[in-house]
Amino acid sequence: MSSQAGKPGETGADALCDTLLANGVDVCFANPGTSEMHFVAALDRKQQMRCVLGLFEGVVTGAADGYARMAEKPAATLLHTGPGLANALANMHNARRANTPMVNVVGDHASYHLPYDAPLTSDIESLARPMSGHVRRIGSAADVSAATAESIAAASRAPGLVSTLILPADHAWEAAPQVPPVKADLRAPTAADPTRITAAAKALKNGKKTVVLISGTGLRAQALESAQAIADTTGATIMAQQSNGRIERGAGRVQINRVPYPVDQAIEALKGFEQIILVGAKFPVVFFGYPGKPSSPVPADCVSLTLADPSDDLPAALEVLAGELGASAPKITAAPAIPDLMSGALSPESIAVTLGHGLPENAIICDESVTSGRDFFRFTFDAAPHDWLQVTGGAIGGGMPLAVGAALACPDRKVVNLQADGSAMYTNQALWTMARENLDVCVVIFSNRKYQILLGELKGVGAGEPGKNASRMLNLDEPALDWVKIAEGMGVEAARADTAEGFTQLFDRATKTKGPFLIEALI
Amino acid sequence: MSSQAGKPGETGADALCDTLLANGVDVCFANPGTSEMHFVAALDRKQQMRCVLGLFEGVVTGAADGYARMAEKPAATLLHTGPGLANALANMHNARRANTPMVNVVGDHASYHLPYDAPLTSDIESLARPMSGHVRRIGSAADVSAATAESIAAASRAPGLVSTLILPADHAWEAAPQVPPVKADLRAPTAADPTRITAAAKALKNGKKTVVLISGTGLRAQALESAQAIADTTGATIMAQQSNGRIERGAGRVQINRVPYPVDQAIEALKGFEQIILVGAKFPVVFFGYPGKPSSPVPADCVSLTLADPSDDLPAALEVLAGELGASAPKITAAPAIPDLMSGALSPESIAVTLGHGLPENAIICDESVTSGRDFFRFTFDAAPHDWLQVTGGAIGGGMPLAVGAALACPDRKVVNLQADGSAMYTNQALWTMARENLDVCVVIFSNRKYQILLGELKGVGAGEPGKNASRMLNLDEPALDWVKIAEGMGVEAARADTAEGFTQLFDRATKTKGPFLIEALI
Repeated sequence: MSSQAGKPGETGADALCDTLLANGVDVCFANPGTSEMHFVAALDRKQQMRCVLGLFEGVVTGAADGYARMAEKPAATLLHTGPGLANALANMHNARRANTPMVNVVGDHASYHLPYDAPLTSDIESLARPMSGHVRRIGSAADVSAATAESIAAASRAPGLVSTLILPADHAWEAAPQVPPVKADLRAPTAADPTRITAAAKALKNGKKTVVLISGTGLRAQALESAQAIADTTGATIMAQQSNGRIERGAGRVQINRVPYPVDQAIEALKGFEQIILVGAKFPVVFFGYPGKPSSPVPADCVSLTLADPSDDLPAALEVLAGELGASAPKITAAPAIPDLMSGALSPESIAVTLGHGLPENAIICDESVTSGRDFFRFTFDAAPHDWLQVTGGAIGGGMPLAVGAALACPDRKVVNLQADGSAMYTNQALWTMARENLDVCVVIFSNRKYQILLGELKGVGAGEPGKNASRMLNLDEPALDWVKIAEGMGVEAARADTAEGFTQLFDRATKTKGPFLIEALI
Repeated sequence: MSSQAGKPGETGADALCDTLLANGVDVCFANPGTSEMHFVAALDRKQQMRCVLGLFEGVVTGAADGYARMAEKPAATLLHTGPGLANALANMHNARRANTPMVNVVGDHASYHLPYDAPLTSDIESLARPMSGHVRRIGSAADVSAATAESIAAASRAPGLVSTLILPADHAWEAAPQVPPVKADLRAPTAADPTRITAAAKALKNGKKTVVLISGTGLRAQALESAQAIADTTGATIMAQQSNGRIERGAGRVQINRVPYPVDQAIEALKGFEQIILVGAKFPVVFFGYPGKPSSPVPADCVSLTLADPSDDLPAALEVLAGELGASAPKITAAPAIPDLMSGALSPESIAVTLGHGLPENAIICDESVTSGRDFFRFTFDAAPHDWLQVTGGAIGGGMPLAVGAALACPDRKVVNLQADGSAMYTNQALWTMARENLDVCVVIFSNRKYQILLGELKGVGAGEPGKNASRMLNLDEPALDWVKIAEGMGVEAARADTAEGFTQLFDRATKTKGPFLIEALI
């Protein structure tokens, strides 16, 4: 029942590559296996495609996420059957929460081989759906180009989504019709509903205490200027969602705070608001439910309005609303001055200060600092202008892969990865890709040698001091991870700092040279 | 809508721990998160439970697989919501292909918090089902003990399966009824159908060329003696499935070959057989479909019979069949002598020879050597008696975690992990758990710095020599991974060998001392 391979250059796999390239998808993060060998052979015939290897699939999808957030177009990924997809899911989850466009190509067994239930067989659709907005199994070699174009279109439509395309090996190796690749039906974001804009303008003048909650492309520098102008005119507060794909910020730009992560701080931050206007943001929800605490930090009697959906053109919606309110140029207040460089023992605060002073112009911060990083945001309002990328879905192990993708998308910008040690372990293989591609990334590992956030949460549940079992599950100090050796083992130069001065010196060195460098910050 | 926490010691989480312990499940491989903190607090109150931390979820489930294969009872795992489960799936897939009993506890959001679609929310059931034979969401604190007992029973019934229990945080923290833990309905394996035994006995006397294909508990030493006696009496050939959870073998035991992995060799090995009798084995299927090749290596006109299903008592079925055939003590032929220790450049062959000579009595081999290891099996027939564990589902990254679990189950036996370098990267975090628990494991990394199997497969698809893109996706040499540094970075002592003599010396050192040790074998 097997089928015959088509001629090199004329297979389904070739049609897939050609369709990706014809629609501007020219980077492929890959971790291939046997069932993808015809696709690899086809990629080998398309030198316009940049293939980037990850030694674990979480690196592949996390990098595709970081790439698309900066390049504003999807990358492709190449994954090997159900288990390969499974390893990729956590960072697909983060990407879907960031509304990142992504086209995953998952190789599967040849269609006629599936009924034999060979060892690698699994239900790929069931695995893909929870983390994908669009799932499609290719039905034949003739179907490849249309299916690929559909996948690209689904991924690319505002606000973007994760699309998963399942490629049975036989449809990759069989001959495909020799026709031009199908063009994806790409569309501009929709305009926000004018009645919503009018309603929001009216609400902003009703005297109620109002917060304008923004996410998505509403957090780009230009859009934030419209938002700030609205706030200046109406007295409303602007705030960003707790977790966002990308914020443009730094000296000379609008300052915006995020809804805090800890539930009590979030409740405090939103206390007293009578009205919330959503701009591409979700109605605020706390990250986890806790006994006796609410699921939303928003006051129960607060009225909610939507200015624009995530799929709308958010900068335009804010601009139109500002116009309707007669709001003109925003007042960009000077950011609080960054404290002087510190000395002595290294702490999250002293690292934040060094960062505030030393961040290179136009840097990209990939933030998975978890508890260690709660100071960074406030100490970098006055840093050189930069982009701030967060791990949006709460799936651990997003930070280093995001940095890989951002650095590939923007080779002329320095990427700074603020990275908790516990989280770094999940996708430590990203370091190798940084070395292989000589990416301009400075990784700062916050080496506190524990799952600090969980020790806090354990205290929060009233369990008191951790005993033996809890301690064995939450402390990482026996043995301590040596991040300098781990990095060097994967080809990345690295050094350790345990004083503020030492850290400042290493960060200075990292920003003055190109290429990957890891600083293990002992805190 | 939130609920209140019960008293410490009386919560749903306590009921879960108590039910696990009451049913003999006393090891928990864990990678917890916030939603599992009440469960962690409960574990902290149960000192009989051994909690073992993995710094990535693939380590957790892979270790649970290795543990259960040797301990012959399930371990529990503790995983954090959908993304944590996702990271665990690849090794759950391997476990399900080995019919390994496993009880995964996946923490989810509080039930009332789920509709808010907080960032970490995902469809856990959809993710769990493809890799689990039993999935159950706990409905209330009062449901915890019954659901847990059901999960243990499902996992433990022969031949064993992967069970996934979803624990919403509120049902973990709420008060549970103070009643004794529910006992799991455990049952012995069923007896093979007597009419099948009679039919097999008849078939074995009909003069046709017959292969008896064995897997599962049919590959234990005692069962293989029955199988060999049957072969001696009838002239049938005995063979093991391509991939198996555990084989007892070595000097003085029955020698049995496996169906080879490469398709052409598998076809060759089964050529000419007119009759195949399955003993807990699946009808042979090739690992991947290839253009112009069959999905099964079994000759088209070969008749298939089943002696016993995987759920049957396979040793008993073989013993009864042997009795029916009048087959008595088997003829254990002397294994081929292991060649003399080699010298000069290190090769898979010289490593295999060293292993054959130097394997300690009663060792456990965890084999994820992929291409490098194809010589090991034949050079170890005459090695000291040992168990051989394979990565059964083709999901990469099973080897080192299997070794963690096997070493925990059998602290008095040396574990030798034969590990391909590319595969090792997927779950390199296992090294840290080996160090943390001071496990008696010798990891041998076959450092060929490429995905050798894929370079072979690429050639197989007729793509010729790899060009730039294929080479960038299949070679791991720029930069080379330094496994000594990676191991040391995670607290495991390590050394490198590039000659046969050097390797023999290091292996000798590893077998003479207790605790983890990694040898990077440059081949």
